[in-house]
Amino acid sequence: MEKRYFSLIEQVRRKKPLVHHITNYVTTNDCANITLAIGGSPIMADYLEDIKDIVKISSSLVLNIGTLNDATAISMLSAGKIANTHSIPVILDPVGCSISKFRNKFISRLLEEVNFSVIKGNISEMCFLAGYDSNALGVDSAQEDLQKDVNLISKTLANKLNCIIAITGKIDIISSIDKTIHINNGNSMLSKLTGTGCMCSSLIGAFCGVSPNNIFDSTVTSLLSMSIAGEIAYKKSSLQGSGSFHSALQDAISTINSKILRERANIYEA
Amino acid sequence: MEKRYFSLIEQVRRKKPLVHHITNYVTTNDCANITLAIGGSPIMADYLEDIKDIVKISSSLVLNIGTLNDATAISMLSAGKIANTHSIPVILDPVGCSISKFRNKFISRLLEEVNFSVIKGNISEMCFLAGYDSNALGVDSAQEDLQKDVNLISKTLANKLNCIIAITGKIDIISSIDKTIHINNGNSMLSKLTGTGCMCSSLIGAFCGVSPNNIFDSTVTSLLSMSIAGEIAYKKSSLQGSGSFHSALQDAISTINSKILRERANIYEA
Amino acid sequence: MEKRYFSLIEQVRRKKPLVHHITNYVTTNDCANITLAIGGSPIMADYLEDIKDIVKISSSLVLNIGTLNDATAISMLSAGKIANTHSIPVILDPVGCSISKFRNKFISRLLEEVNFSVIKGNISEMCFLAGYDSNALGVDSAQEDLQKDVNLISKTLANKLNCIIAITGKIDIISSIDKTIHINNGNSMLSKLTGTGCMCSSLIGAFCGVSPNNIFDSTVTSLLSMSIAGEIAYKKSSLQGSGSFHSALQDAISTINSKILRERANIYEA
Repeated sequence: MEKRYFSLIEQVRRKKPLVHHITNYVTTNDCANITLAIGGSPIMADYLEDIKDIVKISSSLVLNIGTLNDATAISMLSAGKIANTHSIPVILDPVGCSISKFRNKFISRLLEEVNFSVIKGNISEMCFLAGYDSNALGVDSAQEDLQKDVNLISKTLANKLNCIIAITGKIDIISSIDKTIHINNGNSMLSKLTGTGCMCSSLIGAFCGVSPNNIFDSTVTSLLSMSIAGEIAYKKSSLQGSGSFHSALQDAISTINSKILRERANIYEA
Repeated sequence: MEKRYFSLIEQVRRKKPLVHHITNYVTTNDCANITLAIGGSPIMADYLEDIKDIVKISSSLVLNIGTLNDATAISMLSAGKIANTHSIPVILDPVGCSISKFRNKFISRLLEEVNFSVIKGNISEMCFLAGYDSNALGVDSAQEDLQKDVNLISKTLANKLNCIIAITGKIDIISSIDKTIHINNGNSMLSKLTGTGCMCSSLIGAFCGVSPNNIFDSTVTSLLSMSIAGEIAYKKSSLQGSGSFHSALQDAISTINSKILRERANIYEA
Repeated sequence: MEKRYFSLIEQVRRKKPLVHHITNYVTTNDCANITLAIGGSPIMADYLEDIKDIVKISSSLVLNIGTLNDATAISMLSAGKIANTHSIPVILDPVGCSISKFRNKFISRLLEEVNFSVIKGNISEMCFLAGYDSNALGVDSAQEDLQKDVNLISKTLANKLNCIIAITGKIDIISSIDKTIHINNGNSMLSKLTGTGCMCSSLIGAFCGVSPNNIFDSTVTSLLSMSIAGEIAYKKSSLQGSGSFHSALQDAISTINSKILRERANIYEA
């Protein structure tokens, strides 16, 4: 694997990108701490008047619809457009986008009015965005959706939405218009902790913030960092449970570096 | 003690009930993680348009008024009624219900318009609901209220509100119209961590979600799980402090099972 | 150093002051837990109708603008005035006050309409309040601002705003109109975890809540407690990372006492 994938991590620690989040109130603390742990600077602000000044000084913008309401919906649309004007990368985490008409409609509008650099979700969310049936009941992937052709969905979406697509799961898949990468790292404990998906989006925000001209590699490095941190955290907290894993995951991201990624990465082109 | 009290825990892990929370923003992360730790799937959503679709697909609904405002108040009323229509168990956590007229009035209206399966609170909150004086200053039990006849209050409320009543404290008390159970497990550290009450309600949501026809046993198993997890977490984190206890509590819930409950349960009928 | 600085900690544990927070949703859980850990009782409530009754029964009020919006802005103004009427100490944490016109304007209005006992911020925030240029991009201190004459800024602000000023940094500085104290404790990990500033404000709330006639000493003891807890937590969690540090910091505050403060305090008058 090429070095450039991995050395981005030292760039993040050196440049401390400001990652503006408009996100849910369930996992905000984790998202702020993971952004700090990887070396970035988090800012959470969602009020329309407030965000107008903040988007412009940010290195990237992360939009997460986990606890969407009318006020944050308007802020996301506005922030997304401002970021587009200033060529600031915008990342979308369409949490549970299929489970309510309110979320469906908002995501459609968001995809029409804002250009995203990266959209990251689980297979059920991505099925929905790609126009396939989604069986999600809640914010986790539905078992039935796991049987689908994830490669096809990923490539279809990358073409349809003209951005980098990241689908998280047992194997993470990242697609651009012309290539697809699989990451075969990670640990099942990552699905037993809330916010690991949201934290992934924060990492993508941090990496894209220092490398806006290399969104694909930034996204790969983000998902790889989270997956390898999951492996390290599982080993460290083994058999203790999800509280210890939670803590160990933040530890692992705060001490990860390009050498660790290089040694453990299990990536291949699909 | 009969087995049925305890094996519910394996049912939760197998069926992964979707527990919809409309809750405060102080302890949301803990509530989501405890729901995952016991084997459920949490969803936090509070916007009126959003919740209409989400309540219907949920296994249970948890309402918590810890940081209530006008918008979440309306959502709670609406979600509660939808849940009632679909026979989905509704759990109420009336956090600090006596401390402001805003909370007083809302709780009265909620109790009029929504049928609850379980109401869980501390003695000060339950005194207030039962029409006794409550001395609470804040969200914790007042010392004066601890002297009251908790058994009487519990039974009175179960009759008055026609639902299961759970009063947490040094001894936890669960009453239906015709019986009352005492749980003499737990650890005083549980009162030194924010959100242990809210997490109890999440557990009740998870257990009732898989066992809607046995709300009493579900509630007993929930409070028992939290109390025993408190004992295990205290032993594991002893002398270190509340941060370690916090982490160890999530660990204990994520590894608890019916065997552990059976061995440690100190339950008796009052 | 005089004993009175340190024994306040045992007063907090004995009197359990109710600390009302109107704060951001990023670090609320940490603020509630740190308040409990030091011996206080936290209450988070931000809805206008709700807070009117709650402010009056509180021992202190902490206002934090980290995720300010129009509704919480109005609540903060109202709560601040009520607290002033009842001689309840009010603490301000002007998070990121220079980074948006919305925050600028609100802070100006707040300083006009509410009398504060303590204002605590980092050097960039305090530069802005003092009328100097602030280079902050985000909620952390800007490197350029660290070169400024912090003593001068602290004393200027104490005079201008007629309250205790606390500026956190490598060395913490606390000024009243007639004296300035430096605290040379702490650890750089405190800047790699979100919410350590917010938690400082919660501690100030707890200490001022039991000692409203000695706001200066209360503020010194608060910052000293957090700095020394940072040292202890770093030692305990060394090399593990920010997740372990997070947990160890809560542990350290929950087990800190006047003896520990006395042994480790590195305080001097400037």
